[in-house]
Amino acid sequence: MKLVPASLLSLAVAAAVALPAQANEHAADPSSEVPTAEGVASVSPALADYTENLLLGEVWEREGLSTRDRSVATLAAVIARDHRVEIRAQLEHALDHGVTPAEISEIITHLAFYTGWGNAMSALNVAKDVFAEHDIGADQLPPADPELLPLDEEAEQARQEIVQETYGGSSEGVLHYTTEALFKDLWLRPGLTPRDRSMVTVSALIASGKTEQVGFHLNRAMDNGLTRGEASELLTQLAFYAGWPNIFSTLPVAKEVFESRAE
Amino acid sequence: MKLVPASLLSLAVAAAVALPAQANEHAADPSSEVPTAEGVASVSPALADYTENLLLGEVWEREGLSTRDRSVATLAAVIARDHRVEIRAQLEHALDHGVTPAEISEIITHLAFYTGWGNAMSALNVAKDVFAEHDIGADQLPPADPELLPLDEEAEQARQEIVQETYGGSSEGVLHYTTEALFKDLWLRPGLTPRDRSMVTVSALIASGKTEQVGFHLNRAMDNGLTRGEASELLTQLAFYAGWPNIFSTLPVAKEVFESRAE
Amino acid sequence: MKLVPASLLSLAVAAAVALPAQANEHAADPSSEVPTAEGVASVSPALADYTENLLLGEVWEREGLSTRDRSVATLAAVIARDHRVEIRAQLEHALDHGVTPAEISEIITHLAFYTGWGNAMSALNVAKDVFAEHDIGADQLPPADPELLPLDEEAEQARQEIVQETYGGSSEGVLHYTTEALFKDLWLRPGLTPRDRSMVTVSALIASGKTEQVGFHLNRAMDNGLTRGEASELLTQLAFYAGWPNIFSTLPVAKEVFESRAE
Repeated sequence: MKLVPASLLSLAVAAAVALPAQANEHAADPSSEVPTAEGVASVSPALADYTENLLLGEVWEREGLSTRDRSVATLAAVIARDHRVEIRAQLEHALDHGVTPAEISEIITHLAFYTGWGNAMSALNVAKDVFAEHDIGADQLPPADPELLPLDEEAEQARQEIVQETYGGSSEGVLHYTTEALFKDLWLRPGLTPRDRSMVTVSALIASGKTEQVGFHLNRAMDNGLTRGEASELLTQLAFYAGWPNIFSTLPVAKEVFESRAE
Repeated sequence: MKLVPASLLSLAVAAAVALPAQANEHAADPSSEVPTAEGVASVSPALADYTENLLLGEVWEREGLSTRDRSVATLAAVIARDHRVEIRAQLEHALDHGVTPAEISEIITHLAFYTGWGNAMSALNVAKDVFAEHDIGADQLPPADPELLPLDEEAEQARQEIVQETYGGSSEGVLHYTTEALFKDLWLRPGLTPRDRSMVTVSALIASGKTEQVGFHLNRAMDNGLTRGEASELLTQLAFYAGWPNIFSTLPVAKEVFESRAE
Repeated sequence: MKLVPASLLSLAVAAAVALPAQANEHAADPSSEVPTAEGVASVSPALADYTENLLLGEVWEREGLSTRDRSVATLAAVIARDHRVEIRAQLEHALDHGVTPAEISEIITHLAFYTGWGNAMSALNVAKDVFAEHDIGADQLPPADPELLPLDEEAEQARQEIVQETYGGSSEGVLHYTTEALFKDLWLRPGLTPRDRSMVTVSALIASGKTEQVGFHLNRAMDNGLTRGEASELLTQLAFYAGWPNIFSTLPVAKEVFESRAE
């Protein structure tokens, strides 16, 4: 099972298991406590080994998708699944990998709409402790009401027409907020690039099993600059955090998107 | 992004963010701690603003569905998603909005069957603290073994026939308890109106992504008195608590139900 | 609603509600606290009654599936749903019912891949406390790197061909780890029988709503020795822990598998 020699493990990666001990000292909530490598091994030596040598030692280090992008996708996935233990670990991971506090703030805000308010509040409960521990203050956070990115009026008009045709007569309230709160506001906030928002959305959809909506957002992600190779690696990364079944349901959708864009 | 002037915010609504501070004093479990408005803003000023001005200040105040019904649906959704933070907040919200302790008790019991025992036990762990804090005693709870509502023998016969035809030969145990525990017992308990049980069931189905079963129960909800306008607003409310993807998967189902009943 | 006379309740079953009080003394994390029977009744006397008389007093005691197998399936389901309260209760339950610590260790490891790393870590956080309370040491755990069961080269070749044909061109990374980490490693670990691994996988798929993948793994479970009668009872058991909607979505799949194997 040792798929890479332990010597290949960078100190930084090894730290990813051990590091949150410091965080745990301050953790007000034991349900978000990150188990140490010894804690994992005290139940499953195999899982400790898979975590260190396969997941952290190999998968995270694969080419094709930057460690920073892996962190964005993984953080979105664990927030979508409301994994308190992993949320803390992945927040620390993200900061280490160059995701800025402003981007983390926007990711949580984005997921309030795409995974539900409760997931965002749960993530936020952990993030406020992590931000405090890292002395991240208000000056590093995006404002509530920034100048928005310009709207692509034509694409938005087309989107509204399709949505009205498909969903008109179901719930005018939902369609109203989809336009006003999501596409004319949230998606235009400048604190997170459209490529990142798409990557966050796709990762959350996969992690919460909403396969039927991955196609639209994966296409959008690739329109926003995610390459096919990166998308392929995104699925590899998420297999470990969203679980194999969610990925296998996604594979045919991804294949169809890739093939339709190759034509 | 300020979709309503802050001045429109009723004190009652503003309180919904601040009020649980009192609850937190007593909270034995920090994972169910409700973040304060300041806590939210310390990670995301935007999410604090959306919560106060869009969700609490506007969506909860929309016409078409009573605040009491919004609370019933929202409580069901957050129990279905096992959001400990929101469960506490929504239990307080529900009591404020006139949902009785007896109804809350029945909602949790109902969801043991419709979301699984673990979700009910998780909600119950929070509810027992909230009930204790509000001095809600045994005299306010429905009995274990009440006189049941009369059974519509004909409709039940029809249901059993369809189920036997569709699912016969799969699991006689499941079909047995579906009849004996659900349709001849749980649904006939008088502590919650059939309209409320339907609203709880639909909300839980949407919040847990079981789109394929929404049609049957949305029809049943409308048979039990939920109007089309109320159903439309239910979807609007749930968009924020179940997440946009779960609602968008539901829209075509709702549209079909609405259209089939309009014929 | 009393479906069995209380006198039929074995002491062992009654203990399942009361027993974790001891565990609670040591519980570092109140979110995994198991509510006592009194705690349940203080919110819902009905749910306390259903739990004692219907679920523990009747369903768990049904013929057709051993209590030990019910524990394996239930533990997998509550880990898949990340129900911290039930994870603790079901870990205690499993040890009482003869599931060995080594098997529990393998179940958690297996579910890291089939439900995602976060679910496994969450379960592990509870299991390490339970193992410590029961003085379960390293000598009772399976090694990280055991001698693997022999691979059925022909079946694996066929599986790879189907997968490559269906999913080739979607994500080579996912397909690589599916072969190398799952089918040539995880499934061949000797600490859990293939029948148990299949039962764990099917239970996790049902509990997380991945209906579309149940057919493949239910067939595999029956190839690995699960009888039709046992599978039928597995669904009955899971109805209570995965929720009725997840079971009803599974019934047509189970029916098709049963009928295709009867031909």
